[in-house]
Amino acid sequence: MQKEHNRFDEVLTALHNCMEACNRCYDACLQEEHVGNMVECIRLDRECADICGFLEQSITRNSPYIQELASVCVTACEECADTCENHPHDHCQQCAKACRACAEACKALVS
Amino acid sequence: MQKEHNRFDEVLTALHNCMEACNRCYDACLQEEHVGNMVECIRLDRECADICGFLEQSITRNSPYIQELASVCVTACEECADTCENHPHDHCQQCAKACRACAEACKALVS
Amino acid sequence: MQKEHNRFDEVLTALHNCMEACNRCYDACLQEEHVGNMVECIRLDRECADICGFLEQSITRNSPYIQELASVCVTACEECADTCENHPHDHCQQCAKACRACAEACKALVS
Amino acid sequence: MQKEHNRFDEVLTALHNCMEACNRCYDACLQEEHVGNMVECIRLDRECADICGFLEQSITRNSPYIQELASVCVTACEECADTCENHPHDHCQQCAKACRACAEACKALVS
Repeated sequence: MQKEHNRFDEVLTALHNCMEACNRCYDACLQEEHVGNMVECIRLDRECADICGFLEQSITRNSPYIQELASVCVTACEECADTCENHPHDHCQQCAKACRACAEACKALVS
Repeated sequence: MQKEHNRFDEVLTALHNCMEACNRCYDACLQEEHVGNMVECIRLDRECADICGFLEQSITRNSPYIQELASVCVTACEECADTCENHPHDHCQQCAKACRACAEACKALVS
Repeated sequence: MQKEHNRFDEVLTALHNCMEACNRCYDACLQEEHVGNMVECIRLDRECADICGFLEQSITRNSPYIQELASVCVTACEECADTCENHPHDHCQQCAKACRACAEACKALVS
Repeated sequence: MQKEHNRFDEVLTALHNCMEACNRCYDACLQEEHVGNMVECIRLDRECADICGFLEQSITRNSPYIQELASVCVTACEECADTCENHPHDHCQQCAKACRACAEACKALVS
């Protein structure tokens, strides 16, 4: 019972990785000593994790709003990456990388 | 400790009412004798309830993506209303009414 | 077209108020000068807002898991209230109050 | 920048697969000719997809409620599997299989 290849497989993986990286970064930011520097990260991590999770659900249930939601997701991923890239912490760098990959994958849904 | 009036109060009420009406309509559609006629309703009820709930969360946490998400919500509310209006059932008529009100409230966030 | 009274009306209002208060407290905590003191608040606000929103959806779609989810919600509301009560800020006090009311309303679903 | 192995990796994969299988089954059920036979499937697919997605988010953000939510998820996965197994359709069989695997993975979090 092999799952057939699906044109959404790649973006679903990217969304899942990005959601996970954002939530791990959020959790780690809240444990940083200088949490005052991480406020924007915490906020955008949550935004990005939530919209990624929502879009995953939308894609897999064949929603009519995939394209419109993917467009919001691109914005959220890029802004989260922009912020995380400014921080040297491993969790921020990993998050930024996952966000960039997800933004690229989502762009393919929009155009 | 009075909650101060907030420019989002109206849209939050509309979103909550719409989410509730869509989920009740979804539940009732699945109990209809001729469920084959309700397929599009079931589908769009879920879409609309999910995006309304998501936007409620986004507005109350002061998300930077309120405007973009409200735009998706307008589309979902209007398409759900268009479909529900075609059905004579009370739950569909109530749902259509809540969707129209919510679409109007969300439009105010977009422009 | 009057919405009939429903045995869930009270808990739905409590859940909505609690979700809103938690998200507003989360947003305000992230803007506090001494954000390092608010870390537990930020974390539990998000937990509580998310489970409240999820339970709202579950109740309105007549889910078979309302009772089990309400039980988790009671825990989340009480722990968030316990934490918020330790802070003098208005947003924390309002959040604690909304969480207590929501915990009580959810308890009625569990037993 | 290798992602370190994590004790939740297995359950996260199971949750993601289950959420995807449930949503695909939901979508396919709504397109079946005899949709009247699929009503319980449609309903439980949505329940299960939603709780799986919620638990994924909770685990990755290091929520204090993972264990309690995993317990609800076990129930939802098992009931969805019980229902889907009664249907010969490929999407139902695949969904049942993903639900069983997810229930097993979640049980490891509860005990």
